[in-house]
Amino acid sequence: MKNNKIKPSILPGFMELLPRDQQAFNDIVRKITKVYEESGFLPMDTPIIEKSEVLLAKSAGETEKQVYRFNKGSNDLSLRFDLTVPVARFVAQYFNELTFPFKRYQIGKVYRGERNQRGRYRELYQCDIDVIGNEKLSINNDALVISMASKAFKAIGLENYKFQISNRKILAAILKELEIIETTEVMTLIDKYDKIGETSFAEQLIETVGAEKSSVINKVINMQGNGDEMIAKLEELRINSQELKTGIEELKQVLSMLTILGVGEDEYVVNLKIIRGLDYYTGTVFETFLLGNEVYGSICSGGRYDSLAQNYTDKVLPGVGISIGLTRLFFVLKEIGFIDKYVVESSVEYLIIPIGDTLEFCGELYKKLLSSGKGVEIYLEDNDKLKKKLSYANKLGIPKVIIVGEDEVATGVIKVKDMINGDDYILNADKI
Amino acid sequence: MKNNKIKPSILPGFMELLPRDQQAFNDIVRKITKVYEESGFLPMDTPIIEKSEVLLAKSAGETEKQVYRFNKGSNDLSLRFDLTVPVARFVAQYFNELTFPFKRYQIGKVYRGERNQRGRYRELYQCDIDVIGNEKLSINNDALVISMASKAFKAIGLENYKFQISNRKILAAILKELEIIETTEVMTLIDKYDKIGETSFAEQLIETVGAEKSSVINKVINMQGNGDEMIAKLEELRINSQELKTGIEELKQVLSMLTILGVGEDEYVVNLKIIRGLDYYTGTVFETFLLGNEVYGSICSGGRYDSLAQNYTDKVLPGVGISIGLTRLFFVLKEIGFIDKYVVESSVEYLIIPIGDTLEFCGELYKKLLSSGKGVEIYLEDNDKLKKKLSYANKLGIPKVIIVGEDEVATGVIKVKDMINGDDYILNADKI
Repeated sequence: MKNNKIKPSILPGFMELLPRDQQAFNDIVRKITKVYEESGFLPMDTPIIEKSEVLLAKSAGETEKQVYRFNKGSNDLSLRFDLTVPVARFVAQYFNELTFPFKRYQIGKVYRGERNQRGRYRELYQCDIDVIGNEKLSINNDALVISMASKAFKAIGLENYKFQISNRKILAAILKELEIIETTEVMTLIDKYDKIGETSFAEQLIETVGAEKSSVINKVINMQGNGDEMIAKLEELRINSQELKTGIEELKQVLSMLTILGVGEDEYVVNLKIIRGLDYYTGTVFETFLLGNEVYGSICSGGRYDSLAQNYTDKVLPGVGISIGLTRLFFVLKEIGFIDKYVVESSVEYLIIPIGDTLEFCGELYKKLLSSGKGVEIYLEDNDKLKKKLSYANKLGIPKVIIVGEDEVATGVIKVKDMINGDDYILNADKI
Repeated sequence: MKNNKIKPSILPGFMELLPRDQQAFNDIVRKITKVYEESGFLPMDTPIIEKSEVLLAKSAGETEKQVYRFNKGSNDLSLRFDLTVPVARFVAQYFNELTFPFKRYQIGKVYRGERNQRGRYRELYQCDIDVIGNEKLSINNDALVISMASKAFKAIGLENYKFQISNRKILAAILKELEIIETTEVMTLIDKYDKIGETSFAEQLIETVGAEKSSVINKVINMQGNGDEMIAKLEELRINSQELKTGIEELKQVLSMLTILGVGEDEYVVNLKIIRGLDYYTGTVFETFLLGNEVYGSICSGGRYDSLAQNYTDKVLPGVGISIGLTRLFFVLKEIGFIDKYVVESSVEYLIIPIGDTLEFCGELYKKLLSSGKGVEIYLEDNDKLKKKLSYANKLGIPKVIIVGEDEVATGVIKVKDMINGDDYILNADKI
């Protein structure tokens, strides 16, 4: 035997789950998928590897640095780093074959060479939905996609999440009104507010725009209140700007539509500090935090873009989308004990244990139970001790065991052992 | 507007589907998953990127050439090229936390830089199951995994497939008996039989082992008959070899167990020409062809390995597994018209079309229908013409449309239009 074994291990920043957690993960994915499909979102799947020139058509420096990019033959390839660029490419490429508004969902892995830290993964599942219009797209869809995230969270039994919603037009109009020319710097600063903290933010903001303007900005971004109150406060600003009016009007309509679509007022707040770093958002933007676990960052973010696919087509395709960071969410849920409490039922109801020469009889029973829709396994290692066979059922959470010896074959009487309460009962074979 | 648009396209050798085909693909995956889970296979998911030293621990030159391998920082990385190496690494790594026999399934993308040709993909889904024992594993499992493929094919409505089953020990023993030293060359030649054709095969075989031995080999590998007949013919060879006896005994038990597990005699043949190129197989081997479409290659292959994880651990972990090449299978099914006939039902049953100021009423109806378990969409683009709204339902196969105008809100009477037969009927809102 060789002694030069290679240590079995995976790369840091990659998540891999043991079966029980994997079952919980998959169950979460299934529940979310069901929610999306039942509201008319169509499945999509795109290659993980794409041409770098396509994937990086319009990427900022920060993105580019994190991309897994390499050559194969003469091709310059990259691994996708989100599911938004691929959907933009997809709608441009298959425009004539799609029905608009195009509602899609996509669940898949993306890759980011991030600095290794808790809750940040280099290979991560994203779970996206987008609605993309041809030339125009109702603002109602901005509420729709948020309501889908709400439904998804409810479906998996998640509570304590809070959507933080804003509209970029509002802040943009106010900065314009203040005649601020350092818009990007200010936006970037506000985007980092929670990361750098109130004091450092205030200092840097004064440094950038001066004390007077800084005071107005601080007042605006720290406005608080429920939806109606926030709208009222914004209207009270009495700034004569069409962009501000549009922003407020859009926000108003989104909040009203959220109620219509079943999102409770306790599920969201308006937070004008929400910017979303990526520059393609043009209206509604939002992030989502798990209360008490804000430190792990947003678990679901998104927003509206006026022209999603402009790198690939002259067509104007406005869209609005959300992305659930499923791997990060799972990490947080594991941390807070949610996953350990998450109920995963065994897909298998019966474990059939053949004793002696009874395989044929067991096979008949197996086929009968399976075709009646039950999950069922035959324990095929005949040399194992009975104790080990029963322990297999226990460890895998299989609730019922049927031991088939030659007596059972002779009499046809099938005894079921309930592994949960220890009871035995007779299975009526005619009624399977 | 910029005119330097990038042409939206994907790499050759990558499959991407439009929504309707993607729905069919996902439905196939769901059905196969259900079959696997109901028989006790546990889900597994491993990273697509692994350390090259782990993934290529024992790879032949042919594999290595095809691997997507690159550096990121100081790491030498590779994309997985199958799901067998990852499961080997997985069982070695988490040995103490797994329950044996460990039955797992995994469905995921793998990467191979193959020459670009029809039906061969560089990014492809594999759909694997494996049973892995600790030190020993009953031969019954060899039949189990084949029966799972049979159940999977039946679940998706596939017919005309044929498993071609052999046991490597049989041919190995016969070659030994013939005192052939060029075992690898002969095995490789037999493996290529279908590719190079009978005549060329015969010539090359004579060249390698001479006319006399060649005639015996030809006789053996071209034996035909049903299971019992093949066993009888092999036993008639009267070669006094323990390895041959074991091989025949294993084959016999696999065939007998196939019947017990519900695989019909019309679903398989014994074919001693089946070798499987990869060198880790040690007993049962099989491939699967769609009758009339053999040219596309095997759609499901697998076999038994005595020691799966020997590159990573001193533990002896015998296993048996199968792999369905899902992307290739889908390609073939598309080619032969199976996918176009495949019934994909819309997840959405009702499209609600609001006319005028009726969104609130529509929202109530939407929530009511959804919570009764129906799939339902609201058409949110109020500026579109009614014709376009109805056409949306038609194109997406949504069977029922509810138009809500101010009359409906006032009277509460909800009229449903059946898009399939054109009938109208009244929906009893109390009964939703």
